[in-house]
Amino acid sequence: MTSPLTNLINTYHELNASEVDELEEEPSALEFLQFVAKNRPFVVRHAANSWTASEKWVADYLRQKMGSDKVKVAITPLGNADAVVQHSHGSLVFVEPHEIFEPFTDFLDDTQASSSRHVKYAQTQNDNLRNEYANLLPDVPTDIPFARLALGQSADAINLWLGDDRSVTSLHKDNYENIYVQIRGQKDFVLMPPVEMPCVNEQLLQTGRYVSADDGELIVRLDEEAERIPVATWDPDEPEQRTTPYSHLAKPLRVTLREGDLLYLPSMWYHKVSQRIGDEGFVCAVNYWYDMDFAGNHWAQTTFIRDVYQAEQMKPVYPKLETGDEKVTATNVV
Amino acid sequence: MTSPLTNLINTYHELNASEVDELEEEPSALEFLQFVAKNRPFVVRHAANSWTASEKWVADYLRQKMGSDKVKVAITPLGNADAVVQHSHGSLVFVEPHEIFEPFTDFLDDTQASSSRHVKYAQTQNDNLRNEYANLLPDVPTDIPFARLALGQSADAINLWLGDDRSVTSLHKDNYENIYVQIRGQKDFVLMPPVEMPCVNEQLLQTGRYVSADDGELIVRLDEEAERIPVATWDPDEPEQRTTPYSHLAKPLRVTLREGDLLYLPSMWYHKVSQRIGDEGFVCAVNYWYDMDFAGNHWAQTTFIRDVYQAEQMKPVYPKLETGDEKVTATNVV
Ligand SMILES: O=C(O)CCC(=O)C(=O)O
Ligand SMILES: O=C(O)CCC(=O)C(=O)O
Repeated sequence: MTSPLTNLINTYHELNASEVDELEEEPSALEFLQFVAKNRPFVVRHAANSWTASEKWVADYLRQKMGSDKVKVAITPLGNADAVVQHSHGSLVFVEPHEIFEPFTDFLDDTQASSSRHVKYAQTQNDNLRNEYANLLPDVPTDIPFARLALGQSADAINLWLGDDRSVTSLHKDNYENIYVQIRGQKDFVLMPPVEMPCVNEQLLQTGRYVSADDGELIVRLDEEAERIPVATWDPDEPEQRTTPYSHLAKPLRVTLREGDLLYLPSMWYHKVSQRIGDEGFVCAVNYWYDMDFAGNHWAQTTFIRDVYQAEQMKPVYPKLETGDEKVTATNVV
Repeated sequence: MTSPLTNLINTYHELNASEVDELEEEPSALEFLQFVAKNRPFVVRHAANSWTASEKWVADYLRQKMGSDKVKVAITPLGNADAVVQHSHGSLVFVEPHEIFEPFTDFLDDTQASSSRHVKYAQTQNDNLRNEYANLLPDVPTDIPFARLALGQSADAINLWLGDDRSVTSLHKDNYENIYVQIRGQKDFVLMPPVEMPCVNEQLLQTGRYVSADDGELIVRLDEEAERIPVATWDPDEPEQRTTPYSHLAKPLRVTLREGDLLYLPSMWYHKVSQRIGDEGFVCAVNYWYDMDFAGNHWAQTTFIRDVYQAEQMKPVYPKLETGDEKVTATNVV
């Protein structure tokens, strides 16, 4: 008998395309909810072309609006904020970036130069567009109407993402319905549905943070006190590394967002994101997070997949039973 | 560690009410789709009060419209069409009703008398309202607008159900989104969500059919050739009988439909239905079946629950391992 987890992933693929749907135009609230109900992503090309941000967000304009206002910036040696790093003692560690506050203009200079010793990324994901970057907020809609109507709520957070092409957001998932809009440059998304949890090799990792040493070098300081956290360690771009017995069943979806494109990234989907700079020498996007609905089957069933996977990991390995004509008894199990 | 299936059922109950939502009025398409997305039932009281059927379907009117047109009628000794019966040789059998065609007026006479030796039930579930009962079709809407819009399709079947209070439809599920509308009498629904599959003691049963013996007695004829089919054998009204290790975790939802009430019964929910006659001496309802969506997570994840449950049933029972200081080896497992 095929294992239930194998069957789950294969059945899912039989019933669902391995590519992201492209809609001709922005969906109605009803059409959007049909995708939410199915927990399936889609992309709308050029959906944000008429946004002020799409027209105005060149470097000069951003400098003018933000000036020397201090913004929070993630700093990493390789563009690996919130990522898995192999520690010198061999084990994997989930490392958060070094964080500083600096004047926006300094940050943008470094980002455009793309030559700074370390990689900077504005990626705070804490509703920063309605706080730190409030000067830019008038240039984007205060909400996504089809999402607000369908989900019966306003956006919980609006986030600005600004960086260069060295930053990569590693594979992870969020408990949000996510409307992601590309303003400058491009983003390459790799997407995996929640049923592919057994493929991503989630491990409980120690956490750490990059800190700046005296010579300016960024080194990992382990967080000895903190609890370990579950982290996806499989990388869809290195599919032969750190595999589980299920990784080969994954069919990651790939989609590239260009300027003006909008992606619906459904709740609890794994996503890995890399980026390419535009004419202005930086990459910039805005996303809207809506609280997901924990009622119904969605949360309970997704948790169940993880539980079954974990129970399987913990099962004692018994010697294989002899079957056939012979009767199986405790004594011939050796 | 709690077993994954136990955790699934408990998590579901923590996040979902154990009663059926009551809406103040018919939902919009968007509101309806929010329930479909969550795979959660609701009831709207008096939703069909303005239907012609609600006003006109008294016995005289039905006799006048249907006359002696032949209709298909299910006949059983106890009102147990499509039900589990304990065969004389001890094992459980899934028994289909004896079926006859008879003039509608004869059928209605017997139903109203409620005293016939056998129990009759018009329950063909094959779009009968657009076929056998087409004379009555103008008295109900040709579709449920909020469902058609939300699901982007017309009803796949419209069914009439007509019988007396002796008939009980035993616990089962359908791959349809179901809009169920009470016209005469009352129905008592017991509903269980798909995650409660481990509670219902699904078994592969031999099938059979009631046939009429020479003395008019109905006896079960086993279908020796046919494949066994999976049938829920647990009865939420006899919760201590035929249990599984999970049955006690079930929290069946109960709702009574009175004349004019509308129920949304989501796809793949288990339901058991019993009934009480109205003033006219019969029970009558109409339901609309819409094809469910097999894409997204719904079908794949529901199948997964069954697979995990079945794999657990088939696991060889090993002697319990000793744990503790002692090292576990194959030789001390006895
Ligand atoms: O743009 C990125 O780098 C990551 C985006 C992301 O993870 C999110 O929107 O949840
Ligand atoms: O009304 C009944 O007896 C059963 C209804 C039912 O099973 C259904 O609508 O699927």
